[in-house]
Amino acid sequence: MISYDPKSWWGLIFKFHKSDTFRRLLPAMLSLALFSAGIAYADRHLLPNQLKSTTALHALLGFVISMLLVFRTNTAYERWWEGRRLWGSLTNASRNLALKLDAFLPSGHPSRPQIAGLIGAYADSLTRHLRAAATAEHRPNRIAAQLFAETARLRDRGDLSGDQLLCLNPDLSAFAEVCGGCERIQKTPIPYSYSLFLKKFIFLYIVSMPFCFVPEFHYWTALITTLVFYVLASLELIAEEIENPFGEDANDLPTDDIAASIRLRVRELLARGEPER
Amino acid sequence: MISYDPKSWWGLIFKFHKSDTFRRLLPAMLSLALFSAGIAYADRHLLPNQLKSTTALHALLGFVISMLLVFRTNTAYERWWEGRRLWGSLTNASRNLALKLDAFLPSGHPSRPQIAGLIGAYADSLTRHLRAAATAEHRPNRIAAQLFAETARLRDRGDLSGDQLLCLNPDLSAFAEVCGGCERIQKTPIPYSYSLFLKKFIFLYIVSMPFCFVPEFHYWTALITTLVFYVLASLELIAEEIENPFGEDANDLPTDDIAASIRLRVRELLARGEPER
Amino acid sequence: MISYDPKSWWGLIFKFHKSDTFRRLLPAMLSLALFSAGIAYADRHLLPNQLKSTTALHALLGFVISMLLVFRTNTAYERWWEGRRLWGSLTNASRNLALKLDAFLPSGHPSRPQIAGLIGAYADSLTRHLRAAATAEHRPNRIAAQLFAETARLRDRGDLSGDQLLCLNPDLSAFAEVCGGCERIQKTPIPYSYSLFLKKFIFLYIVSMPFCFVPEFHYWTALITTLVFYVLASLELIAEEIENPFGEDANDLPTDDIAASIRLRVRELLARGEPER
Amino acid sequence: MISYDPKSWWGLIFKFHKSDTFRRLLPAMLSLALFSAGIAYADRHLLPNQLKSTTALHALLGFVISMLLVFRTNTAYERWWEGRRLWGSLTNASRNLALKLDAFLPSGHPSRPQIAGLIGAYADSLTRHLRAAATAEHRPNRIAAQLFAETARLRDRGDLSGDQLLCLNPDLSAFAEVCGGCERIQKTPIPYSYSLFLKKFIFLYIVSMPFCFVPEFHYWTALITTLVFYVLASLELIAEEIENPFGEDANDLPTDDIAASIRLRVRELLARGEPER
Amino acid sequence: MISYDPKSWWGLIFKFHKSDTFRRLLPAMLSLALFSAGIAYADRHLLPNQLKSTTALHALLGFVISMLLVFRTNTAYERWWEGRRLWGSLTNASRNLALKLDAFLPSGHPSRPQIAGLIGAYADSLTRHLRAAATAEHRPNRIAAQLFAETARLRDRGDLSGDQLLCLNPDLSAFAEVCGGCERIQKTPIPYSYSLFLKKFIFLYIVSMPFCFVPEFHYWTALITTLVFYVLASLELIAEEIENPFGEDANDLPTDDIAASIRLRVRELLARGEPER
Repeated sequence: MISYDPKSWWGLIFKFHKSDTFRRLLPAMLSLALFSAGIAYADRHLLPNQLKSTTALHALLGFVISMLLVFRTNTAYERWWEGRRLWGSLTNASRNLALKLDAFLPSGHPSRPQIAGLIGAYADSLTRHLRAAATAEHRPNRIAAQLFAETARLRDRGDLSGDQLLCLNPDLSAFAEVCGGCERIQKTPIPYSYSLFLKKFIFLYIVSMPFCFVPEFHYWTALITTLVFYVLASLELIAEEIENPFGEDANDLPTDDIAASIRLRVRELLARGEPER
Repeated sequence: MISYDPKSWWGLIFKFHKSDTFRRLLPAMLSLALFSAGIAYADRHLLPNQLKSTTALHALLGFVISMLLVFRTNTAYERWWEGRRLWGSLTNASRNLALKLDAFLPSGHPSRPQIAGLIGAYADSLTRHLRAAATAEHRPNRIAAQLFAETARLRDRGDLSGDQLLCLNPDLSAFAEVCGGCERIQKTPIPYSYSLFLKKFIFLYIVSMPFCFVPEFHYWTALITTLVFYVLASLELIAEEIENPFGEDANDLPTDDIAASIRLRVRELLARGEPER
Repeated sequence: MISYDPKSWWGLIFKFHKSDTFRRLLPAMLSLALFSAGIAYADRHLLPNQLKSTTALHALLGFVISMLLVFRTNTAYERWWEGRRLWGSLTNASRNLALKLDAFLPSGHPSRPQIAGLIGAYADSLTRHLRAAATAEHRPNRIAAQLFAETARLRDRGDLSGDQLLCLNPDLSAFAEVCGGCERIQKTPIPYSYSLFLKKFIFLYIVSMPFCFVPEFHYWTALITTLVFYVLASLELIAEEIENPFGEDANDLPTDDIAASIRLRVRELLARGEPER
Repeated sequence: MISYDPKSWWGLIFKFHKSDTFRRLLPAMLSLALFSAGIAYADRHLLPNQLKSTTALHALLGFVISMLLVFRTNTAYERWWEGRRLWGSLTNASRNLALKLDAFLPSGHPSRPQIAGLIGAYADSLTRHLRAAATAEHRPNRIAAQLFAETARLRDRGDLSGDQLLCLNPDLSAFAEVCGGCERIQKTPIPYSYSLFLKKFIFLYIVSMPFCFVPEFHYWTALITTLVFYVLASLELIAEEIENPFGEDANDLPTDDIAASIRLRVRELLARGEPER
Repeated sequence: MISYDPKSWWGLIFKFHKSDTFRRLLPAMLSLALFSAGIAYADRHLLPNQLKSTTALHALLGFVISMLLVFRTNTAYERWWEGRRLWGSLTNASRNLALKLDAFLPSGHPSRPQIAGLIGAYADSLTRHLRAAATAEHRPNRIAAQLFAETARLRDRGDLSGDQLLCLNPDLSAFAEVCGGCERIQKTPIPYSYSLFLKKFIFLYIVSMPFCFVPEFHYWTALITTLVFYVLASLELIAEEIENPFGEDANDLPTDDIAASIRLRVRELLARGEPER
């Protein structure tokens, strides 16, 4: 994820970051401008008066395409934000587990650094798990199993009472829930028919535009078509980028940093010599 | 569910999968084009000057129909995504149950493989249950009853303490909740009046279009009407497909794969010889 | 609730069920067509050139009215769907309670059929309670009290342990929550001012339409106005019907069927001779 | 809150309740009509041909203002409905508490009527607390403290077991949560900048309208402007009214009635001589 | 946060608070008016008839930009409201903790004032933590650790039973959850690409406007462009301000006041001599 100042207008308007849709769409925009200009030339010099000027078709469909793209943006953003919320839950569960074990276990207990290590390792392995292709072994599950085993052993030895185990239960359950939630987002793109349809619709909308606009706007059509294409395609591109937020793209979530922060805060809480009371 | 690369534009634009609305709507689109052309012919040669050219009516109603279809898309998508979330909860509950029992039961305990089998069987039977017509027996309930009975027996024998049973309770309850949630989505289509109205509205909107557009656009009307119909009907078709996501259509959820993954991961956790601690 | 096939287009377009808005609005549509035709006649023959042709006003307000009606549809649908979700929670709580008691109580225990009866009776009495006018006695509360009393007695006699009672607690609490949620939807229509305003707005919008459209569209105005009225009024009518989903209208929830299914499944689980283990 | 029949169209269209926006906006509407007519007069007789006729500006900004007002309506409605849901939670928590204590305490126990009284008093004091200005004493907190103290004392004396106290815990916690939620809605209006901007925008939109419309619509402008103003201002007025739903306005929630119903139902459950088992 | 009366229309329309977008955008609006007037002058006197008059482009893109800005407003508002809800949860958890400890601990117990102090200190330190730059020490975590340690010590000494500790668990867990939620909102602005694109889009939309409008509207273009810019840029500015609601801006949440109220109410409940029973 890129850190930026959302209030810097000029900076953002004239910045063409490599993830910027303007830069990524430039080749397509140039081709489209040429294509529109070609039609304008044909309309004027080769086959005059064959086309019927109208903006009605694109105005009518303009409602639908705008609303679909905003729905698309909204859906993608919700997936991105749900991903962020899941990692927030991981932070919260990690902290609460550390806070509770810090209160329940005497200072200097050997399980303190061990559990701190396991919690940190879980966040790290989840980051990698979500970026890797499917593997035979499910690392996060394995670490969760060690966490559960460790707390169960503390209970068996009497270091934790049954009530205390119950206090830890929601936090321990959260680990698998976060992992499952992230896998769900990562493995389930929006429905196939929908993705197919939206791209076809943008294509038809843009490609039909010069034919309807050229009789009235001539060479200006190239500019208009390109601008409309830039806007519509940008929305689709951004949605594609943010709907799967666990990679290493410019807009992806800073899961590395979150994992590092979890590791730091948990160690701070559990690994100190003497808990402050 | 079809796996696809959402970033492949050309691939998706020129792919006409059998679930693609373009392919499914083609016969209707051709009929509509003929119908529009017929009206254009009648307007020019048979009954000239009987129609009043206007785009105002379709522009006015264009807002409503666009927004209704986006609302429809949104509703259907939310059902689809809720279905996915329910299966995600099943994954999470299955994993947490396995993780906890792995920690609570000694390695080699005979209930380990048995419970692993029951959890896997639940996911399988739910997949089949949601696809089958109503049957006399409710398989998932039956398997859930065995799961509950098995944990209650472990508690009675002292293999699980009362606290440990309470730790398992939310995960055990999740099974019936997922099943109930999926049945709710499967058995409750959107309200009848609403479905009736939306189809009538699309029909009136499309059928009235050539009468209003022919005086101005002549034979171009066939193209315009067909394109608008393609867009509106596609949205309705996709919504119909995804609103009940538990079948075996191209857009349905991969419940078989999820069930297989649950079976694999649960066996991995519970059925190994010696739990890693 | 009417069972129907959402994929049958022709069937739905040409079906005029008695709950269909087309049938219910027909008298109003005919009156409106006559009214518009009257104004068209007056404009041509009685008071020519008194009206100013414009579509701008209705286009401007067309945005607002469309969005308000979609907001209205959305709100009503959410109430309907929340009602459905509440009954889904009742199913889940009933099943989980039956599953747990089946596991906790020995087979043949006299409380099994009794509790199965109480759970089924709760769903039945809730159906009737939501349809009846306010009565002195609150039947569902009474049955819930018996359910709680029965589980408390099982605990007192030692048939259930304290931990087992805690396992049942969320399911037992769900009964009153479902009942309260349904009563909330049933007793709270959308705010009065809002309902007042929306009906006034539709009325002004439709009644002013012929005056603005007649100079340009003459007798066609009757058709346009009627079609626009059909669409706007249908949305409001459907919203009115589904926003209170507990009656016996065509679009209301099949609470009878859900209650019957709860009764069947709970008896299946609790009342059999010997629980399968 | 006013009880009304949402299906009575004529009744609602021709009813001008004192909370009706039509009645409340009438003075402003008349002033605006005069203002528009004045401009129309000036354009025709005093300074002819100084204005440029256009509907483009208001069409463009019409999208934004419509969507903002629907967003505003939506936000206000959600606050209103959240308020209603919070009072629904209070009903549910009160009932569940009564149901559980009815099952846990023997009939005739002196705490039964006392707790029934406290639950009823909580709902009453919350109604008053939300209507009153900030006071030194927090009555609902005080009553909640007595409820908690009473249940703790029952536990100390052995009338409730630890497990039973845990069963009551979520219901007891709900009281402070409902109170906190209501205070949050009551004390936090929508952001200041946003409220400032929306009123300025409506003002500029309406005031600039006659200048753009007069060249074409002359005296009809007064009617158009007034109608548009009525619609936009009504939406803002209704939103203002319902966004803080705890007062005694026509659209406010019937918290008095809900409190009375809680009192009645709780007494019914707890105060009877012998609980039915 | 500024306290204001949302029903005072004239007050809000003619108030130009320093956070008002009108005041903040004034320089940009003046520059834009000059720029538009310059183009109008050039079109009339320097390079006549080079531009093609059209409102079609801006009408088409007007849908998209309006919907994007409303989506933006909605997203920002949800973050703001989620921040408010999180602080509401802190209030609720603080109160419930105080209510429960008041009931569980005998009056005069030395932990009462100590815990009251810790709860108040948590809210204070969270306010400061969210405003400060990242620091080495995580104050809220430290205070939460002391709270947990104190309750664990009460449990060890027998002042609290295991069941009572379990009753406190959800409230104690809420502290870290609120803190984590606020940090999530504070540290995660909307995706970079999206912010980049939206600002570019507004810029292109506004800058291209005079070129399309000048042939028809001449000097009036300056007024139109400025008004449209005021509306679009205001929405973006307000969204920027409220999306991070934990600072000290005019629209930020009154976290100081909430923290003060928590401190007051908690002390009221816990620190009095003799709890009322």
